[in-house]
Parts: sequence; structure tokens; C-alpha cells
Amino acid sequence: MVYAVIMAGGSGTRFWPASRRRKPKQLLAVSGARTMIRATVERILPVIPFSRIMAVTAAAHADKVRGQLPELSPGMVLVEPQGRNTAPCVALAAYKLVGKDPDAVMAVLPADHLIKKEKEFYDALESALEVAATGEHLLTFGVVPNRPETGYGYIALGEQVLEIGSRPVYRVLGFREKPDPATAQRYVESGQYLWNSGMFVWKATAIIEAIRTCVPRLSDAMERIAGALNTPDEAEAIKATYDEVDPISIDYAVMEHARNILCIPIDVEWNDVGSWASLVDVWERDECGNVADGEAVLIDCSGCVISTPQKMTALIGVDDLIVVDTPDALMICRKDKAQEVRKLQEMLKTRGYDHLL
Amino acid sequence: MVYAVIMAGGSGTRFWPASRRRKPKQLLAVSGARTMIRATVERILPVIPFSRIMAVTAAAHADKVRGQLPELSPGMVLVEPQGRNTAPCVALAAYKLVGKDPDAVMAVLPADHLIKKEKEFYDALESALEVAATGEHLLTFGVVPNRPETGYGYIALGEQVLEIGSRPVYRVLGFREKPDPATAQRYVESGQYLWNSGMFVWKATAIIEAIRTCVPRLSDAMERIAGALNTPDEAEAIKATYDEVDPISIDYAVMEHARNILCIPIDVEWNDVGSWASLVDVWERDECGNVADGEAVLIDCSGCVISTPQKMTALIGVDDLIVVDTPDALMICRKDKAQEVRKLQEMLKTRGYDHLL
Repeated sequence: MVYAVIMAGGSGTRFWPASRRRKPKQLLAVSGARTMIRATVERILPVIPFSRIMAVTAAAHADKVRGQLPELSPGMVLVEPQGRNTAPCVALAAYKLVGKDPDAVMAVLPADHLIKKEKEFYDALESALEVAATGEHLLTFGVVPNRPETGYGYIALGEQVLEIGSRPVYRVLGFREKPDPATAQRYVESGQYLWNSGMFVWKATAIIEAIRTCVPRLSDAMERIAGALNTPDEAEAIKATYDEVDPISIDYAVMEHARNILCIPIDVEWNDVGSWASLVDVWERDECGNVADGEAVLIDCSGCVISTPQKMTALIGVDDLIVVDTPDALMICRKDKAQEVRKLQEMLKTRGYDHLL
Repeated sequence: MVYAVIMAGGSGTRFWPASRRRKPKQLLAVSGARTMIRATVERILPVIPFSRIMAVTAAAHADKVRGQLPELSPGMVLVEPQGRNTAPCVALAAYKLVGKDPDAVMAVLPADHLIKKEKEFYDALESALEVAATGEHLLTFGVVPNRPETGYGYIALGEQVLEIGSRPVYRVLGFREKPDPATAQRYVESGQYLWNSGMFVWKATAIIEAIRTCVPRLSDAMERIAGALNTPDEAEAIKATYDEVDPISIDYAVMEHARNILCIPIDVEWNDVGSWASLVDVWERDECGNVADGEAVLIDCSGCVISTPQKMTALIGVDDLIVVDTPDALMICRKDKAQEVRKLQEMLKTRGYDHLL
């Protein structure tokens, strides 16, 4: 059977002040009326029913995730005692699924990305699930780039090895870190590089095998608790083991080392919405490149991102600002200084405003 | 007897969105906990008691003014059917006072200015009231300038004609419009020019006489209703006459023409708080010249004016911005574009946001 694993462990620092520790990005309605996690789940329902969708989240967000996805059975909301990046999350989900269904094929999807062309996406998802079912390969989705984006990692494509329906499937030569602008330009022009979407499809046994080869310590930890999964002892067992699990991403831990990786290109208007600045590519722009999610009147402004859904916002004579208003905190940040938001959060903590984080 | 006339007719466009048509600047607590009108009144109480303080305001704000000054007797809140600038306001108050007390001496004070050195101010006020009691002169307060401000009008001083206590009193040579920077510099260096504070002291009969000479049309209108003032017919009479009264300032109408004007210099940290930008001279500045009336964390910012009293405000990498937050409207404006706020208000009106004005 096919399953989806929604990774909802984000901690929500980059979308402050809209996101908070208790309300990370996946629980925000960044685009449209639905939260990102709800949109992620609804997007795959034509292919995978609620009964086979699992969400993995941190203890602090579990209640809110359950609230967003009331259709999920209680056993399918897997709670991590603390975030340990994506590899432990994927491993835990794989062991849990294989305990229920040895032939489980799982689609691993971050809870906090946007896809505009939903039909094209779930068509591709069906193809991927079909290929993955053999258990030979780990599949990743590569997004066809429409610009030389330096904020994403890239997948280097090898030769085409399959065609499923009329959809080509490629071998993966390797993964590339976020490139400099010249390299990004070269990547895009070559046609041989796709954006790494962080969405994967594989048979649960296949990723368990890859983890055993690439990260044996993680594999050992999971083997110790595998027997307790899907039993009343599950939460206790996870808690006891998670402390000693190293935080590492599935990309670093497995994808960059495994040999049997294939890539399915998708062209679905995907956006990982990594920062406020990324919303200029998501929301509708005015003629000066401003975007806003509320009522706004702008005079002589350009390139601004304005998230002030609860009030009229008037901007006069400013360029490239991020403006985010919430009931208890307002942030105004130059777009090219967005990385300073972390410093800001440190300062707030130091000054006793922990309750605003 | 001595009286105060508090001119509270401001319409409150320059402090949008904190000020609205129904809540102009004089009803804001721009500095400290008190509204400006309340502070203006409390400042003079050591010299003039509540029972001899009159407020003149527009119909739209009368209830709020009464709410701010509950100690005033009902007859001492004079309501203008519509604003007609300061000359009609002063004339009406003078006729009303002279009807109660032919020897009334009146201090005319705008409701929307700040004075930090209150004791020095009311000392000067006492001196002015004493000089004005003779009925020979119209007195104005000139503020000793501490910078070549181009946003104020100036008073050109003539020779000293009196000393009251140890306080010199000067003849006024004339009034000067807001100067260019070079002229302002020359004014300040000469020591012969003071800022025009718009605060005046005179005997009611003296200003009535000056108005008769300088603006006979206004004088005629007032003579027609003088008999109705301080009677139950007062409001009706004012309403019937005010339509035909020309809007004109007391400066243009009288002060620039009358010959018997004296000036008392005051050095009291006065500020007319004419715009958001002026608050950099009122509120306490940080080391980068930012001012804020609420909790704020600033990283790499300078010269910002931040009025967001109800929430934490974080600014990153911005200079010379005005930021004003209210429950239903947020404004962010470059300091040198503050004059565009009027255009903004027009746009809001056109687009159906009249309720926000």
C-alpha cells in the first residue's frame, strides 16, 4: 500500500513574528485560506487517502497538527520528543510503517511548501509511487527551475533510465549545495540541474536498508525500538531513544551517499517559501513588484512584502521592505537583511521577551 | 480677571493614523500619559483656575473635549459649527469673555503644543498677563530658538520697551514666514529672531479693537451676535453667523498689521509637534537618533520615529522611517515624504476607506 509521511517538525523562526515557537510555518496560512500542512495533505488526497497519511511533528505542535488534520487516525500522528532534523524523522516513520505493512511505499513530503499545479504534482506522485514499489530505488522529485535561484540546492541529473507513462525518470549524479549566482546561471542554462524539492518516494524497506548502510548509529537506535512501535509502549520507547539520536538531514545522511537514486522532474510551480522574501514569487505582485496579503495603499514603493492581514497598511516612499504585523509584534526589515531575524530573536530572548518567540 | 482660551480646533490630518477626523492631535497623548489638551490646561492651572478656562472646539470634537476637561463649566466649552482658522475663534472667545467681564485679560493657547519647562512658562505667562492688563498692547510669546528650524515662523524683535520682574519685553518689528535654511541660520545667529509660538496674551477689549481695525467684516459679524453670547440663544446665533465668516488666522488677520505688539521671550523647551518627524525633538533618542513610544528592538537603524505603543516593534536595517501602528491602520513613511500623507488620505477616501480617516 502507499502512504504519505508529512514532515511537520519545522520550528518557525524565519517567519517571525507571524510564526512562533508554538506556531511554526507549517501551521500558517501563508498563501490562501489553508494552513500549509492542510494544503500539503489535501493536495495528495487524490492519490493517498487520509487513512494512509502520517504526520510527524514535535511534541510542542502535536495538538495543533491534530487540529489541522482531524481525519488522521490517532496512531498516524507520530510525535518526536524533540526535533532531530529529517533523517530520524524519516527513519522512525519507515520503521513504523513497515511494522504495519511490510510492503509499504512511502511518499515523504515537507509540510511547509507550496505547489500551484496540484494535478501535475499528484500525477507525478503516482508515477513515483509506481517506480518505488519495486523497492530497488529511492526517488526524489526535482523541480524544473524557472530562474537561477541561489537559495535552493540542486540535483545533477544523469542519463534517463526509465519512462513511466510518458514521464522520464533519470539517474541522479549528485546533489549540489546552494550555488553562487554564476553557478546557478550555468545550472539553469544546462538543463541538467533541477531544484532539490526535499520530497521523496521509496519503499519503507528500501530507505531502512539505505539508512543501515549510510547511518548505522541511527539504524541501531531504530532497531532497538522497532518492536515497540505500533504498540502502547511506542511513545515511551521513542522518548527513551531520541535523546541519543544525532540530528542530521536525510539529504546529508542518505541521499548524498546512496547509489540507487532516481529523479522525476516536476514542473508544478513549487516554492518552499523559505522566507518572507520568497513571497514575491508566491503572492500576486503589483506593477512595482510589491506583494501584500491585506488591504494596502502604496505610494512610490517597490519590492515590498507586506503581511498585515488584519489592517489597512499605508506605505510611502519605501523600497524592498518586509513588513509583518501581528497583534503583539510588528517587524520591519530590509529584504537583504532578512538573515538578521535570527539575531533579532536572540536579542528578544536576552531582553526578556521570550514570550514573543 | 484673567482667562485662558484653549484653541482646540485642529483637524488631525498630519498625525494619521494615530489622529483621525474624530480624534485630532489635541486629543492624542503624543508625549506622556496625558492628551495634549489636558497637558495644556494643567500647565496653566498655577496661574488660571479651571473656572476661568475656556475651550473652543469644533462640533465634531466637543464631546471628547468635554470628556478631557470635565472641570470646565458647560458655558466655557465654546463650539464652532465648523473650523474657520484662528481669527474667528479668537474673536468669538473675546466677545464672549467681554460679555462676562469687561476687564477680561485672555491668554490664547493652542491645545496641541508641548512645553517641558512648565514653571518657566507659567512665570512668563504671569508677566504677560500683568503687562496685558493695561489694555495697551497685544502680547506674543517668542520661543528662543535652539536650532535653525525651517518649519516655524519667526518674530523679528525690536528694542526692549519694558522690564517686568527681571523679564525683558520687546517691541515686535514684524513676523517672518518659515525661512529657508540660510535665512534660518542668520536668524538664529543674530539673536534678534524668536520662533512664533502662536500663544498670545491680551485684554479682550484690546483684541476686539484690533480686529475692528484689521478685519472689519469679522468684527461686524461678531457685533451682530454679541448680544446673544452667554444667553440660551448663543449656539443658534453662532451657527447662523459662522457660515459667512471667512477663515483666516489671527497672525495674518491681526498680528501682521497691528502696531502695538510686544513680545516676551521664553526658553521653555517648546515644541508645536507639527508632524511625526518632529517627535525626534520630543521623545528620548537612542544613540542612533531613533525614538519610540513603545517596546522596540532596533538593529542597524537610524533616525526612525516609531509610534507603536501597543506592541513590540522590531526594525532591521532601515533609516529615517516613520512607523505608526494603530488597531486598524499601519503607516510606514520615509521621513522626507511625510507631506505625502495628505495624498494618501485622498487615496484612502477615493478607494472607499473613508472610515479610516
